[in-house]
Amino acid sequence: MWAELAGIGRASSGGYRRYAWTREDFELREWFASSAAARGMSVVVDRAGNQWAWWGNPDEAIGVVTGSHLDSVPDGGAFDGPLGVVSAFAACDALRAKGVELTRPLGVVNFTDEEGARFGLACVGSRLLTGALRADRAMALRDEDGTTLAEALRAGGRDAVAADPEALLRVGTFVELHVEQGRGLVELNAPVAVAGAIWPHGRFRIDLPGEANHAGTTALADRRDPMLDYAQVVLGARASAKRHGALATCGKVQVEPNGVNAIASRVTAWLDARGARADDVRAVAADVAELARSSGGALVEESWTDRTPFDAILSDDIAHDVLGGAPRLDTGAGHDAGVLAQAGVSAAMLFVRNPTGVSHSPAEFAERDDCLAGVAALTRVLGDLLAGGAQA
Amino acid sequence: MWAELAGIGRASSGGYRRYAWTREDFELREWFASSAAARGMSVVVDRAGNQWAWWGNPDEAIGVVTGSHLDSVPDGGAFDGPLGVVSAFAACDALRAKGVELTRPLGVVNFTDEEGARFGLACVGSRLLTGALRADRAMALRDEDGTTLAEALRAGGRDAVAADPEALLRVGTFVELHVEQGRGLVELNAPVAVAGAIWPHGRFRIDLPGEANHAGTTALADRRDPMLDYAQVVLGARASAKRHGALATCGKVQVEPNGVNAIASRVTAWLDARGARADDVRAVAADVAELARSSGGALVEESWTDRTPFDAILSDDIAHDVLGGAPRLDTGAGHDAGVLAQAGVSAAMLFVRNPTGVSHSPAEFAERDDCLAGVAALTRVLGDLLAGGAQA
Repeated sequence: MWAELAGIGRASSGGYRRYAWTREDFELREWFASSAAARGMSVVVDRAGNQWAWWGNPDEAIGVVTGSHLDSVPDGGAFDGPLGVVSAFAACDALRAKGVELTRPLGVVNFTDEEGARFGLACVGSRLLTGALRADRAMALRDEDGTTLAEALRAGGRDAVAADPEALLRVGTFVELHVEQGRGLVELNAPVAVAGAIWPHGRFRIDLPGEANHAGTTALADRRDPMLDYAQVVLGARASAKRHGALATCGKVQVEPNGVNAIASRVTAWLDARGARADDVRAVAADVAELARSSGGALVEESWTDRTPFDAILSDDIAHDVLGGAPRLDTGAGHDAGVLAQAGVSAAMLFVRNPTGVSHSPAEFAERDDCLAGVAALTRVLGDLLAGGAQA
Repeated sequence: MWAELAGIGRASSGGYRRYAWTREDFELREWFASSAAARGMSVVVDRAGNQWAWWGNPDEAIGVVTGSHLDSVPDGGAFDGPLGVVSAFAACDALRAKGVELTRPLGVVNFTDEEGARFGLACVGSRLLTGALRADRAMALRDEDGTTLAEALRAGGRDAVAADPEALLRVGTFVELHVEQGRGLVELNAPVAVAGAIWPHGRFRIDLPGEANHAGTTALADRRDPMLDYAQVVLGARASAKRHGALATCGKVQVEPNGVNAIASRVTAWLDARGARADDVRAVAADVAELARSSGGALVEESWTDRTPFDAILSDDIAHDVLGGAPRLDTGAGHDAGVLAQAGVSAAMLFVRNPTGVSHSPAEFAERDDCLAGVAALTRVLGDLLAGGAQA
């Protein structure tokens, strides 16, 4: 399966550009459908655009579901998302090889547009599914070329996306396997961990106005150069995050007019802030807002997600009883499993060790043995759930 | 003439986007040709792509030439360039109205691609003309869409551009009128000045490598975030310029992958540095190069232009004798007149007061009375040159 996926959406950089509702995405969806068909699983696309492969009939009983997403960030790695989908199919194969009888249906899901690389909003597929994102807002999202999600859907032969409570009700329990995106498992010296919670997470836009002018003729004292304000914001956000024990990143910036010999007329920047405690993350945003205000600018909250715990009983059961003492690990990354947990679904996650901690990069990596340990753990968890174990 | 030009290439911002060899540029060239035709002037396009309107026969004697350029920076103002071309035609009209007899031909020029907004290199038309820019290098320049100058020319029905020493030899004396781009004339309390020299000017690229990673899962201590290095460069360049009495501007930056939740893998920035003394400008570049090196990056010189004096005898004569004591003013901006001066042409410039000093911006402005004072001064200068005055 890994070899089949390797070539899809690979850029000359070696990284992946697999954006929602593009040609690459349709290739990935075809791969998903044919992988399901090869296993005799029936494929359903829900109203939100997510793909579900079912072993057993999901109309007869509430299912156990695993899976992840196949899309990527710009120049992303091979593991973030696909490892969870490939491991899901591999766990199905292992359960069949063991002759496991289904007590209820087992589903594998490919959530659409998890990374939000094209339309700027993450977890669109799972948020639409649960109703956390309204369909009209989703359809109006625009990519950098000005194409709306609605237009992208029509170009792909699809009319619309919408919430799908019936599809959500089929999910009794959801377990997502994902490559770790830090070095927590390296420090714990273990191949697999069970997720604790997703950290609180804020995304903020910072508007810094200035005055366009000629770089060769405007005295330093006469300038209103927002690039200087931006530099203060970048350094201030980092210092504040360090002070509050949180994370702060300025990864995206847009400059107008962005000319070598032109003092910028406007800088628009984005702050991504996360941490174990919501108060710390809020404190970082407040510090940066104060910096922006002192430059005549403003900080605008684009999204805020509180601390998201996974199902504690299910996760404890998986870590202690099913996996015999796997470590627990919080994460700063958002996931579809978190969106489902917020909607009240019993959800848990497994993380597979990342030897470098590098993610969202062509250098993202996981050892083959650790990936196999992940599949083995997922197989045990699903087998236990199907046998009537935790929360079944 | 001003009203005819007002609508061409005007963006919704109110600023102008008049880039070389675009539809807007062809409209401006048509306007130039018909303005010349309306005055009975013959229009020639030289091998470098510049337009010349001649009153009198340029093959019979070496000419006196005035003019400027019609292209703009992104969201530029109405005056930078067009004021010199419109004033040139207006001065021709005034000379005719006075019944001036030509002792040698009088030319009006529209230099192509002065701002370099599309292909990243300034004064392409005048540099090609003089041979300061090699034709093969010019033809290989690319715009942001990857279109080469050669392809843009072919799309416009033109085969190639090249040096044109014969066209250059027709220019005995060149006088360019231009809106001032600082507040020098405000401080001097005068409507018109004669240029002294163009400051030394360097353009540098700064490459700052980093490591792509996930903004939510990578500990601050594990990051190699080039955005932090960029912030240090921006603030360091400004502090160094202040220390050395020069100008430094970071107006353009490119970030990869430029995603909100992605630590940047690479930041490419540009430094524009100028000042009255070359040593000071070099010192600023050296300070920024040291900052870049300390972050594992590098500073690369993309272009360097030494102090460019205009023709001193001609300029003194214009300032003292012809205009009766007009002030002299150095400038930090590059101009086609400077390119011609470097090639050995007797060249001078007139600046028209800019009440705010704002330029390369939709807010760029000059008072009507000051523009008329500029036309009157240019008319006197051309009349004096045609009467066999300074350097004739």
